[in-house]
Amino acid sequence: MNKEIPYKIYLEESELPRQWYNVRADMKNKPAPLLNPATLKPMTFEDLRPVFCDELVRQELDDTTPYIDIPQEILDFYKMYRPAPLVRAYCLEKKLDTPAHIYYKFEGNNTSGSHKLNSAIAQAYYAKKQGLTGVTTETGAGQWGTALSMACAYLGLDCQVYMVKCSYEQKPFRREVMRTYGAKVTPSPSETTEVGRKILAEHPGTSGSLGCAISEAVEAATHQEGYRYVLGSVLNQVLLHQTIIGLETKAAMDKYGIVPDVIIGCAGGGSNLGGLISPFMGEKLRGERDYRFIAVEPASCPSFTRGKFAYDYCDTGMVCPLAKMYTLGSGFIPSANHAGGLRYHGMSSVLSQLYHDGLMEAISVEQTSVFQAAEQFARVEGILPAPESSHAIKVAIDEALKCRETGEAKTILFGLTGTGYFDMYAYEKFNNGEMTDYIPTDEDLKPGFDGLPHVE
Amino acid sequence: MNKEIPYKIYLEESELPRQWYNVRADMKNKPAPLLNPATLKPMTFEDLRPVFCDELVRQELDDTTPYIDIPQEILDFYKMYRPAPLVRAYCLEKKLDTPAHIYYKFEGNNTSGSHKLNSAIAQAYYAKKQGLTGVTTETGAGQWGTALSMACAYLGLDCQVYMVKCSYEQKPFRREVMRTYGAKVTPSPSETTEVGRKILAEHPGTSGSLGCAISEAVEAATHQEGYRYVLGSVLNQVLLHQTIIGLETKAAMDKYGIVPDVIIGCAGGGSNLGGLISPFMGEKLRGERDYRFIAVEPASCPSFTRGKFAYDYCDTGMVCPLAKMYTLGSGFIPSANHAGGLRYHGMSSVLSQLYHDGLMEAISVEQTSVFQAAEQFARVEGILPAPESSHAIKVAIDEALKCRETGEAKTILFGLTGTGYFDMYAYEKFNNGEMTDYIPTDEDLKPGFDGLPHVE
Repeated sequence: MNKEIPYKIYLEESELPRQWYNVRADMKNKPAPLLNPATLKPMTFEDLRPVFCDELVRQELDDTTPYIDIPQEILDFYKMYRPAPLVRAYCLEKKLDTPAHIYYKFEGNNTSGSHKLNSAIAQAYYAKKQGLTGVTTETGAGQWGTALSMACAYLGLDCQVYMVKCSYEQKPFRREVMRTYGAKVTPSPSETTEVGRKILAEHPGTSGSLGCAISEAVEAATHQEGYRYVLGSVLNQVLLHQTIIGLETKAAMDKYGIVPDVIIGCAGGGSNLGGLISPFMGEKLRGERDYRFIAVEPASCPSFTRGKFAYDYCDTGMVCPLAKMYTLGSGFIPSANHAGGLRYHGMSSVLSQLYHDGLMEAISVEQTSVFQAAEQFARVEGILPAPESSHAIKVAIDEALKCRETGEAKTILFGLTGTGYFDMYAYEKFNNGEMTDYIPTDEDLKPGFDGLPHVE
Repeated sequence: MNKEIPYKIYLEESELPRQWYNVRADMKNKPAPLLNPATLKPMTFEDLRPVFCDELVRQELDDTTPYIDIPQEILDFYKMYRPAPLVRAYCLEKKLDTPAHIYYKFEGNNTSGSHKLNSAIAQAYYAKKQGLTGVTTETGAGQWGTALSMACAYLGLDCQVYMVKCSYEQKPFRREVMRTYGAKVTPSPSETTEVGRKILAEHPGTSGSLGCAISEAVEAATHQEGYRYVLGSVLNQVLLHQTIIGLETKAAMDKYGIVPDVIIGCAGGGSNLGGLISPFMGEKLRGERDYRFIAVEPASCPSFTRGKFAYDYCDTGMVCPLAKMYTLGSGFIPSANHAGGLRYHGMSSVLSQLYHDGLMEAISVEQTSVFQAAEQFARVEGILPAPESSHAIKVAIDEALKCRETGEAKTILFGLTGTGYFDMYAYEKFNNGEMTDYIPTDEDLKPGFDGLPHVE
């Protein structure tokens, strides 16, 4: 073991970031603006304020300010579980017999179990500060709903979660965590919204989808006095809050003079990946230092690697603004075969632009290989990873094995976004040898692409 | 907020304990020895070595050496998740509007989710060092089995877990965590052991019990070449390993000049409580400083508060040595009404002796009040606690509320042994208002007492 670099690199309180970093400020090609679905004009502050808190709208639209102060109250909350550990994966390196140095930033070190809490507390804080009563949101795999419920409980805000019906039924424990934190959890589609009733009338037996739950949550927010809608990924504001991950990581690495060669993150909507890479990408954009960035997505929902870079709807009900992004089309339904999250049809506009400009790579990986990597990692590093996070583990292991072949001592950094405690059904399938892979054919992808809106 | 004391007090690597503390060395009245069930004579080293690793037998029998070096390999493993945070519960204090200062030592900060890992890695290490192939054990609620599976995966030891059948079926996720770490999990009673077959023949429909699973695991260990049996609580060796909890806590408190007035822990077999209080108890035993200690147990399984101080069997099959302890009798079956762990009929001999000598108090609390405390804690402190841990939370809150009445600014310390991710069935019951309390009548306790062996 290297004596100089500890297993876990922690930052002192005085070394913690006090500002988020807005990577858009350093992007030459800015991400395309959100468009009003009615007028196809860029969404303005006034357009967005009925849906989002004022301060969050400002953050959403601001693509010039590089650093944004983190309010003291949020810093105080972060102190409850941050800094998240940056871990040198000595045991994994030894197991792989690789000369590579592997590091991971572990964001599952809080009771919500994932990085989602970083943005949940920020969004809840701004809602509270604006004097609102509560917030609405949707959740699929349940990590975001859990994080938001916890943040709202802490601040005394009402929290209404529309949970995709199949998750509500298949993940009762996630539901109960949210309820324990005091959230009201409704299976979606539901009778509580117009869009929900419409969908139920058209598809009586539907088990719901994330896009549908988004539509319901937005309607619920705009139809209740003192409520706003919040979202756990994709949006610029969410990536901004999540830069706390990358800023801490960079500060810890700088402290020990470590420079990563390759930075790897799983990508669903992009909040974790964007948060992790932003400060490093900033250096690359400013021409200060070069890094390799790899987005890892499931082969069953390959937005980057097989999607189109186009304006698309963010939700099924088409009540949300249009976003320009790599997308499989809002009509794309990921196979039920696929376990865990990362099932969103689109991708953050910021990351989409960076990928489009060749500043980042993307790889898609198959499910069983992801669980193999997860199990291998768990056994030596002790952490039982979420299936989402395990996509990054899989590619980090592959990179480390390449180093074993070439003899290069590359420094590999990846984001470990959360724990897999609530994904044991999927692990059980894997343990029993019942897990299979699924790669959509071009024919499978066609309906999603055909449904893309026609926007210049 | 107090500026001087951070939310979480972490120790530097150089401040971490490098020895376990053996409280028996400072006890005037030593805990009574284990007795050989055949001869009723104290168990010798030779009697115990077919069951336990040699080094662990030495630790079990050693009641004179005050400090025992922690092997470097165990220290290295501890570094992966220790020091565990000592948290100042600022948010809970504020919520309770109490002048009390509340601290908790959080042991759920590792993927096994509980303090059990502290002893699991030690026991697995000594087995490995002795050149053994594997270990066997039993698990009820599943925390111990999870921790041991993780430790064995890390060291490359085979791990065979006998899991109480009702838990095996009702807690499939715990089972899958163990399997993911590579353990072989068998529902108990099973056809794989003589004692299991005997029990199945007598009670074909039985859903098993901890005492029965212990008997099977002991038989499996002694009938396989290169295997030994390990246990997650009750034993002197386990309490010894768990003193890492109290030693870290005391070091962190000393660093900031904090002196607890009252120290609270939940008590099932006693490993967490013993580990937390030992270094403080040592000061009390040596006359250096006085503390109040409170053991908290469920009203449905009240070993301390309603049990007898007597020699008793540790398991149902009566293959284990007799231990002198506060016990409800090995024939006592805790009500199925009771959720979570802390269901063991007996109690650590060390703690039993300390309690008998008036050095410690004990309180029993009812289940619904425990879950109320758990929910209150989760909403402000962000951590979703295990039901076991929540027994301590309940009494810590009660003590803090007394301070609000009296105006005293007492310093309260409690052990938060783990997280409740795998106990959401119980939380669901509580959330739905379907949880009830159960206190056994004297009549209910009679059969257990009647079955106590007649030992002077």
